[in-house]
Amino acid sequence: MKGSLTIVGLGPGPKDWMTGAATATVDAATDILGYEAYVRRLVPGSDQSVHIFDNREELHRARRALELAVEGRRVALVSGGDPGVFGMAAAVFEAVETGPPAWRALDIRVEPGVTGMLAAAARLGAPLGHDFCAISLSDNLKPWTLIERRLQLAAEADFVIALYNPASKARPDQIVRAFQLLRHYRPDTTPVMLARAVGRPDEDITVTTLGAAGSHVADMRTLVIIGSSATSMIPRPDGRPWVYTPRSVEVS
Amino acid sequence: MKGSLTIVGLGPGPKDWMTGAATATVDAATDILGYEAYVRRLVPGSDQSVHIFDNREELHRARRALELAVEGRRVALVSGGDPGVFGMAAAVFEAVETGPPAWRALDIRVEPGVTGMLAAAARLGAPLGHDFCAISLSDNLKPWTLIERRLQLAAEADFVIALYNPASKARPDQIVRAFQLLRHYRPDTTPVMLARAVGRPDEDITVTTLGAAGSHVADMRTLVIIGSSATSMIPRPDGRPWVYTPRSVEVS
Repeated sequence: MKGSLTIVGLGPGPKDWMTGAATATVDAATDILGYEAYVRRLVPGSDQSVHIFDNREELHRARRALELAVEGRRVALVSGGDPGVFGMAAAVFEAVETGPPAWRALDIRVEPGVTGMLAAAARLGAPLGHDFCAISLSDNLKPWTLIERRLQLAAEADFVIALYNPASKARPDQIVRAFQLLRHYRPDTTPVMLARAVGRPDEDITVTTLGAAGSHVADMRTLVIIGSSATSMIPRPDGRPWVYTPRSVEVS
Repeated sequence: MKGSLTIVGLGPGPKDWMTGAATATVDAATDILGYEAYVRRLVPGSDQSVHIFDNREELHRARRALELAVEGRRVALVSGGDPGVFGMAAAVFEAVETGPPAWRALDIRVEPGVTGMLAAAARLGAPLGHDFCAISLSDNLKPWTLIERRLQLAAEADFVIALYNPASKARPDQIVRAFQLLRHYRPDTTPVMLARAVGRPDEDITVTTLGAAGSHVADMRTLVIIGSSATSMIPRPDGRPWVYTPRSVEVS
């Protein structure tokens, strides 16, 4: 058997947000690799080998997946959301670039999925309805000064801003610092949305404003969206407001 | 029957990139509305009403979908890719905001899908593996000067840039002007990717560089991705190179 590696996006949580192609790829794999929380969502067959990894071992996990493909296994490396957005795909290609030349000849594929900001936006209305950017707020892999610079330029560009990894136990305050920075560029009335565990039983969605956002809690399972100057809230008789960003910009 | 409206993302093309939830929503609808090219992908049941619209009638289509929901129909308004990213969801909420108060009490949902840039990125490797932005290059709904300003600030922020609607018959040269602008900020060696009709029989993917990109043809079915300063090409013995953006940024 000729080996292969597919990095598969499982979507943001529930199985019915997986694509048909992602499901088929996982079902056809001889080996399923992934972080425990993602592998636990699946029901592997008795003939499938399951390899569970710690969340901090991304390059190690990528290399192991490549090694198994070289050995002729049909490998599915699973990733939450979309594997290409702050997921496992970049880790695999980093491993390929720095690894043995044989890895470049492997059959490697990426199966896209619904990334977290799309699911969060769907719950909220259409906050990403106009130009936007996605920034990971984790400074494990980049300097905080670069994050601040990107936030500032994104605000100047009047992008809607989606923040992945807004906070963790080790860095609970960075999201608050991001809100403080953005207050210099956008009014306190700007819609701010915190979407935690979207699609899971403990889903929790908050719509607030930039002026009031500081005290809200975010963690690694939260996606934060900050509106542009055009983002609008539509009050509803029941429940939280819809939030959307119009497709058009008036010429002022 | 209590009416409802769900704006459904069909993904970028093939049926196996649809989520299970999107498929279930379309199957359960009494009425399916959409632009002809999207409705044509589906196989409606004999008891489902199908309403086909011209692509330029977005607000009209949104209002018709809302009216049908008020009448008690279970409406699926279908959109390519993800409906929240340059799709039909923002048009629906624009219609709600400016429409009769009763529309605010309707059961409105959004079913997320795989948006075009994720599918394009999956074919290419992992070009969106680090902070990125998404900009529609169409100036039908916003001034070109704003597009230029956003491109400039996105380049200064060193985002990977995904461009939707890069060109049309009416404006074939805007993507060329975008490349010209970006050459002031990024080296000619910057990877540029053009992904046309991803997942369709006529899929066509080009990997080039910013210096050479001017002469390549893009149209409304093309997604263009421009790398950041960190985006890297990995040559392969067969076929086009992998393109990926590393997860980490070195402190210089």
